[in-house]
Amino acid sequence: MSGSGPGPTAVPTARRGRRTVDLPDLVARARAGEARAVARLISLVEDASPAVREVAAALAPHTVRARVIGLTGAPGVGKSTTTTALVRAYRQAGQRVGVLAVDPSSPFSGGALLGDRVRMQDHAGDAGVYIRSMASRGHLGGLAWATPQALRVLDAAGCDVVLVETVGVGQSELEIASLADTTLVLLAPGMGDGIQAAKAGILEVADVLVVNKADRDGADQTVRDLRAMLTLGERRDGAWRPPVCRTVATRGGGEGVAALVEAIDEHRRWLDSSGERARRRVERAAREIEAIALAGLRERMGEVRGSVALGALAEAVVAGETDPFRAADVLLAQL
Amino acid sequence: MSGSGPGPTAVPTARRGRRTVDLPDLVARARAGEARAVARLISLVEDASPAVREVAAALAPHTVRARVIGLTGAPGVGKSTTTTALVRAYRQAGQRVGVLAVDPSSPFSGGALLGDRVRMQDHAGDAGVYIRSMASRGHLGGLAWATPQALRVLDAAGCDVVLVETVGVGQSELEIASLADTTLVLLAPGMGDGIQAAKAGILEVADVLVVNKADRDGADQTVRDLRAMLTLGERRDGAWRPPVCRTVATRGGGEGVAALVEAIDEHRRWLDSSGERARRRVERAAREIEAIALAGLRERMGEVRGSVALGALAEAVVAGETDPFRAADVLLAQL
Repeated sequence: MSGSGPGPTAVPTARRGRRTVDLPDLVARARAGEARAVARLISLVEDASPAVREVAAALAPHTVRARVIGLTGAPGVGKSTTTTALVRAYRQAGQRVGVLAVDPSSPFSGGALLGDRVRMQDHAGDAGVYIRSMASRGHLGGLAWATPQALRVLDAAGCDVVLVETVGVGQSELEIASLADTTLVLLAPGMGDGIQAAKAGILEVADVLVVNKADRDGADQTVRDLRAMLTLGERRDGAWRPPVCRTVATRGGGEGVAALVEAIDEHRRWLDSSGERARRRVERAAREIEAIALAGLRERMGEVRGSVALGALAEAVVAGETDPFRAADVLLAQL
Repeated sequence: MSGSGPGPTAVPTARRGRRTVDLPDLVARARAGEARAVARLISLVEDASPAVREVAAALAPHTVRARVIGLTGAPGVGKSTTTTALVRAYRQAGQRVGVLAVDPSSPFSGGALLGDRVRMQDHAGDAGVYIRSMASRGHLGGLAWATPQALRVLDAAGCDVVLVETVGVGQSELEIASLADTTLVLLAPGMGDGIQAAKAGILEVADVLVVNKADRDGADQTVRDLRAMLTLGERRDGAWRPPVCRTVATRGGGEGVAALVEAIDEHRRWLDSSGERARRRVERAAREIEAIALAGLRERMGEVRGSVALGALAEAVVAGETDPFRAADVLLAQL
């Protein structure tokens, strides 16, 4: 399935110079599946370029049809190899696959991640796979902002499945869960055991739990712990019960990956039958709107910072002519 | 200087029940130096009670005259003992002293800190000292919000000097520097050496560097390192050159504390002669106004979260009828 194409068609990740963009043309080419056009559109949304609004408007009629699968877990649990194994499985099933690897700790993006290069080699020459690394610390902050836009781009480019992979640190696993239709939480035996996971609240975001490196000592115990903890949590009738899958993503075609794909499919059927998919997508859109609105407010606050108006208000406060609350009211009235 | 009064007059820190407040009376009593009135006013501003606006308005005409001295440094460098030694020195000079101990990691306030209790014992019975612990994680976030209001209360209560002490973690040392007229950065030999300090950017906020526990091994080296690094930094003519003081705050009356007080005084003279004090106070007021305005915006965003309006916008985005940027515009127009 790989190495047979004319050359690497994974999304080129080098930053492009800023030039005038023929947006309708770019969107048309992305929708035709042209990798460079997809890359360019993602760069535009990721950089929060002024064109981002036009891109969003151009993509709006093409509502997201792709299944969005989130992968999260502590560093070292094998997220990249699991992603690679899933990409392979979906490609073998004839699906077009997008991968967004989000690094919440890096201000850099565009292929700087080692894992990205490894995967690119693996899928180089396969026109059915788009791979993109993203930084989550953008100008306007966070996964919540750029990732949904990038999802829309990949969807417009005809991806059937988009895998969003992020390391589970801080709030990122909660953010990814809000983006994904199905969230996989990865654990490995002996690192980040079930109790740690429960403490960190990640069990609550998991739709499917994956114990990777399941050939290692302690895997049975980790699986048992997780199942016990899942039984403890009271769930209402008709609620989804997260299965616990065991994988060895590095081995051969990826041991246990077929069962994982089946678990994800089962969750998909539940999403549709329960109406949960629609609810999640509305919730996702609401968070996206909020994030954009907050970014806009912050931007406007940034504009008044150091402005003549704020300086005058500050001087009035220092002189005792007004208090900071009344001054803030005046400032807000000017936004 | 202590133990001679009728009983503990350090600010009582237990939370009061919420009752109607006679604000003009409270402000009048605080201005007369009544410790309980001061404590009550600080509680009002810290809790972001609705009365906070009235308190600020009532205090506005009484512009801050107190000198504000910030102390910051890593855990364990001896901030509390240094604060205690400085309080003693200023009290011996006949000054009224306020202390705000800000714990950026704690959501609790009001005397929960061990250090606070220790200090209270030391200065119990001294009506010339107000001591108050504050949590910086309040409803509306951060040191930037409540501390300036508490400063105004202490100033109105007749404090000549207010010491604001906070542990140097995350952004707190930058925040304290923006609040203080003079910022002391404390280091101890063998922990957080000069290079670490330089990396963390704390040298840039220091007006006076204090190597505490200067009787320990490595103190000379730490002092030399700091002086060398300060020489490396290019400063323009007339700029303040931070001195490096050596103290053993725990010893006797506080070894080296007299020289530290003199260094702070020298900085005070420079603040006045250079016009820097006025500039810093305007800058501080500007940040305070911004923080209040941002808190107000966040509060308004919180009100729309889960609202019918946001839900409808999110559904329109999911249906492809609009894009999230246009939806955010609609949301912002409703704020």
